Amino acid sequence: MNFKHITQETLAAMEDRARAHFINSLSGFKSANLIATKSQNGLCNLAMISSVVHLGAAPALVGFIMRPDNGERHTLANIIETNSYTINQVASDFYRQAHQTSASYLKTQNEFDETNLTAHYLDGVHAPFVQQSQLKYAVKLEQIIPIELNGTQFVIGEIKQILCHKTAMQSDGYIDIEALNTVCVSGLDAYHTAQGLSRLNYAKPGVETTEYQQDELPKDQRHKN
Amino acid sequence: MNFKHITQETLAAMEDRARAHFINSLSGFKSANLIATKSQNGLCNLAMISSVVHLGAAPALVGFIMRPDNGERHTLANIIETNSYTINQVASDFYRQAHQTSASYLKTQNEFDETNLTAHYLDGVHAPFVQQSQLKYAVKLEQIIPIELNGTQFVIGEIKQILCHKTAMQSDGYIDIEALNTVCVSGLDAYHTAQGLSRLNYAKPGVETTEYQQDELPKDQRHKN
Repeated sequence: MNFKHITQETLAAMEDRARAHFINSLSGFKSANLIATKSQNGLCNLAMISSVVHLGAAPALVGFIMRPDNGERHTLANIIETNSYTINQVASDFYRQAHQTSASYLKTQNEFDETNLTAHYLDGVHAPFVQQSQLKYAVKLEQIIPIELNGTQFVIGEIKQILCHKTAMQSDGYIDIEALNTVCVSGLDAYHTAQGLSRLNYAKPGVETTEYQQDELPKDQRHKN
Repeated sequence: MNFKHITQETLAAMEDRARAHFINSLSGFKSANLIATKSQNGLCNLAMISSVVHLGAAPALVGFIMRPDNGERHTLANIIETNSYTINQVASDFYRQAHQTSASYLKTQNEFDETNLTAHYLDGVHAPFVQQSQLKYAVKLEQIIPIELNGTQFVIGEIKQILCHKTAMQSDGYIDIEALNTVCVSGLDAYHTAQGLSRLNYAKPGVETTEYQQDELPKDQRHKN
């Protein structure tokens, strides 16, 4: 048998950090995003979040999990205070700086300065964006759902304005985030880039799965398969 | 300016399918998992889910978003009926079959049979596992949180038993899911494998980010950097 069978007893007996590595690996590859906020008195905060999840396209809703620890509380406090945050996809040329934002900085320390990332602003959006990110959007807080099972909170917002590097936008709406070198996370601390297998057509019962073709585009502009 | 600025007005004017592609691309790379269930009268169901998210390590909690559409309702009905489901990471050698489970099969159709995937069972777990998956776990339903903003539901469960291919388990608890060829998803229909950048040490204020080294392991067993 090539499989190891891990029971709840084995899990309970694991050292805390090892269990964290292990359980964090189970959900699969996770998105890598920087959430940027600014308090009402002008202090910026940046937090690396690997739990951003798509909730729906109309209205355009996005959620993420906020753990009850120190660094992220600054982010949550700013979100509650201003209703405004931005989500910035992390790419391979600044994932180390993004990771560094998870250090326990004081509320008075600005993670942009501490990690050499650059803030920029858009008219009508209170929160800063991360200059280095090639795909980022402004979100308005809609709801915070407390998860009593473990003291985390599910933060839901509506996507209001998007900034996307033009080269990644395709005619059918798909954004080629692989071309933007967007990274993903596994476990607590492992970073990866992605390599395309294929896009697949909408699945129908009794019809074999086939690769998606953007027929209307010249061949050199099609998504690689 | 290399960026396109998309406002809410632009979003609202997009054709439905294009908006779905676009908004689904914003959260970043998504996990690819098959959720397997079985009704009390023995009918199996498989659903491809790209929203599985880590919630916490102690207790070991995992969540996912259930949309209010047809195929997934079978899965939700089985979960509510039995409290039992399994989550099975999707790998590159069966991602097409996994995608095919998203077709609108009838409740009486078994997605295992329809897509040539194989069910297997573990003592004490009602729901089936997917044989082809190299990392999978049994989950017990803990809570379903309705998200009134768009009619989705956040399904939370506790991880009870795990089956993991031995080659991917590392001494510090990390599971090398890249070595298992676990795939990730972007947008609605694009699949990718991952390529490691590095693991990074726990970040500390004022200390430069460094690569994680598993010093206790022989070099050939370390995670590649």
